[in-house]
Amino acid sequence: MNARSRMHDPVVVLLTDFGLDDTYVGQMKGVILSICPNARIIDLTHAVTAQHIALGAFLLERSLPFLPPHSIVVCVVDPGVGTSRKPVALKTERQTFLAPDNGLLTPVFNSLKIKDCVGITSPDVMLPVQSSTFHGRDIFSPAAAHLARGLPVSRLGEPVDPASCIQLPACIRGKSDGSAMEGSVLFTDRFGNLVTTIDTAPLEHPEEWRIEAAGLPPLPLVKTYGNVQDGELLAYEGSFGTVEIAARNANASQITGIEPGIPVRLVRK
Amino acid sequence: MNARSRMHDPVVVLLTDFGLDDTYVGQMKGVILSICPNARIIDLTHAVTAQHIALGAFLLERSLPFLPPHSIVVCVVDPGVGTSRKPVALKTERQTFLAPDNGLLTPVFNSLKIKDCVGITSPDVMLPVQSSTFHGRDIFSPAAAHLARGLPVSRLGEPVDPASCIQLPACIRGKSDGSAMEGSVLFTDRFGNLVTTIDTAPLEHPEEWRIEAAGLPPLPLVKTYGNVQDGELLAYEGSFGTVEIAARNANASQITGIEPGIPVRLVRK
Amino acid sequence: MNARSRMHDPVVVLLTDFGLDDTYVGQMKGVILSICPNARIIDLTHAVTAQHIALGAFLLERSLPFLPPHSIVVCVVDPGVGTSRKPVALKTERQTFLAPDNGLLTPVFNSLKIKDCVGITSPDVMLPVQSSTFHGRDIFSPAAAHLARGLPVSRLGEPVDPASCIQLPACIRGKSDGSAMEGSVLFTDRFGNLVTTIDTAPLEHPEEWRIEAAGLPPLPLVKTYGNVQDGELLAYEGSFGTVEIAARNANASQITGIEPGIPVRLVRK
Repeated sequence: MNARSRMHDPVVVLLTDFGLDDTYVGQMKGVILSICPNARIIDLTHAVTAQHIALGAFLLERSLPFLPPHSIVVCVVDPGVGTSRKPVALKTERQTFLAPDNGLLTPVFNSLKIKDCVGITSPDVMLPVQSSTFHGRDIFSPAAAHLARGLPVSRLGEPVDPASCIQLPACIRGKSDGSAMEGSVLFTDRFGNLVTTIDTAPLEHPEEWRIEAAGLPPLPLVKTYGNVQDGELLAYEGSFGTVEIAARNANASQITGIEPGIPVRLVRK
Repeated sequence: MNARSRMHDPVVVLLTDFGLDDTYVGQMKGVILSICPNARIIDLTHAVTAQHIALGAFLLERSLPFLPPHSIVVCVVDPGVGTSRKPVALKTERQTFLAPDNGLLTPVFNSLKIKDCVGITSPDVMLPVQSSTFHGRDIFSPAAAHLARGLPVSRLGEPVDPASCIQLPACIRGKSDGSAMEGSVLFTDRFGNLVTTIDTAPLEHPEEWRIEAAGLPPLPLVKTYGNVQDGELLAYEGSFGTVEIAARNANASQITGIEPGIPVRLVRK
Repeated sequence: MNARSRMHDPVVVLLTDFGLDDTYVGQMKGVILSICPNARIIDLTHAVTAQHIALGAFLLERSLPFLPPHSIVVCVVDPGVGTSRKPVALKTERQTFLAPDNGLLTPVFNSLKIKDCVGITSPDVMLPVQSSTFHGRDIFSPAAAHLARGLPVSRLGEPVDPASCIQLPACIRGKSDGSAMEGSVLFTDRFGNLVTTIDTAPLEHPEEWRIEAAGLPPLPLVKTYGNVQDGELLAYEGSFGTVEIAARNANASQITGIEPGIPVRLVRK
């Protein structure tokens, strides 16, 4: 822990599929503040589609550049809770991440330099009684709070070989063969925009590309909504840094009938 | 107020049925920070079914063990707002609770030692103008913020005899006759799990019990989802510490058609 | 910045139409805490109907009295994101507001004394790379965080003449000719209450008035739900300080079939 992080209250970031319709997230926050009263907690999102690990990984990956330095990031999308999958903690050069070892932290392995990787096994950092269904509250929250208080990651449990951790195949990112990039629609946002997995960062001249999806006319990549008329479809670099299909002042999901999972393809004009 | 609470920022916990679709909760937080700028506010939940006092009481009861010590807990599920029901504050050995006197604090009376019980009547701890429909903002939030600043509970108003406060009958907890426990489905969570009122804490050997609900085959109590196949129904101790009926990687509510209110019965095998 | 605000952590208030189903709001918070680690962030609401500037302005206007003094209020309802509309900052006697110049800050111009008005143009207060669709994260959040750290508003960019800023016509407030007030249903809240734009503050004797809406019998203004029977319709001063039409322990929206936009009229009995 460096001088900067010592001077400020520790930040704990939460990403889960628990939603806000229950007390799940509230109980996690209660546990965290019970152990580390000066933690600042922010919700990255609790609306990952239930048990959709790949979507959780995508949302985490796209948010990595915006997470506070030195923060402790708790990620729980955990269809295997109560089975033998391991809770793990990854300390990196920027943040420390806690999650079930099920692929959710794939983008952390891909993008950040791992400094420490441990299994969370020490009873000292868990609630005295653990349910078999809510490790978010009983294991991940107290472990995060102990880190927020300054406990070194190595004290959470035994070292784990990062190479042994589960990582998702690169399916969550568009694949490129030079002349085309393949991807899919990952989810529909609240505005009806279709968020795809095709990263726009490698495109030097976006205006030279267009996107193709089942049953749609090819859509050129444009810069803003201003390029099209009301109700018209467009493709552009969305807030996640990937191609999105939208309709100006209208709902692209309803207009196109396109569902998450549908393949999309970015090709040169 | 002891040394520990003086050292840390005060924590205010909110539980309401206001939802997050309006500015209700945001305005409460604005009022709290206007009066006590260093309060830390956490949302236990704002998704109690509208005006469902018994559900609010259940969610509070299940969350009590996870609330930060010394925190100030504001609970507003208040169908009688604007009528003569009293706003009350209960100081206990652990937290201080503010709520309308309508049964919402029943679990606090049941589980914690009451040290002080007062009606919130002092104009000094309310907003200067109070609406007749939003005491959460105009009475409970400023009163909580004054407590967070260190005002003693006794200054909120006149003492009230705890025995005179409204308490819900024990209907929110399963009743036992030794060989069976009776309860009901209280609500359906976001995953479609059916959360019942039957507490599992008294069961020494859970594997000796099974649950019965209208139209379902008897379901043995199992430890984890790992015990059944995909799509199969199971009963287990859920995150609330009560029996839940779920389906592995599927939606038990849709599969069974069971609605909140349906009686369930836990019997020995 | 006065002595009071220096003593306390700065408060940043967020009002957007981003919802909580994505990571939009979480990324904004990450950016804010990355720049100003001791900011306290509260959500006024993120559930403004998508791109409904007038509703955002109404919710902001009704919440102004409850915002913490000296707080920094970020408002983003921004159908023109990526086009030439300007991001602006308004410093007032009470709070500082940041928003697109599209009418969203109309109530601030109407109600508070403007001390400073600037366009947010300085690259020093933005993220190094700005998307064309998410200025909430890339421009407004970092600018707010720099203000929270103490940067003067004048450093955000060039001065702007407040008279040149876009203001909505007074359509969001009921108009009065002395014997009647005209307004409309602005939105339906979570309880099914119909929130209108008719301000009740000018009414000295509310009991002398009644409300008329298409197809409904005239409803007298009453003080509380206690004045009517279960299921019966009533009109009263709601939590926003405007007339609301509700049904006791029932859903007025469903009972009446009235939709947002329908005109309503308050007349003397």
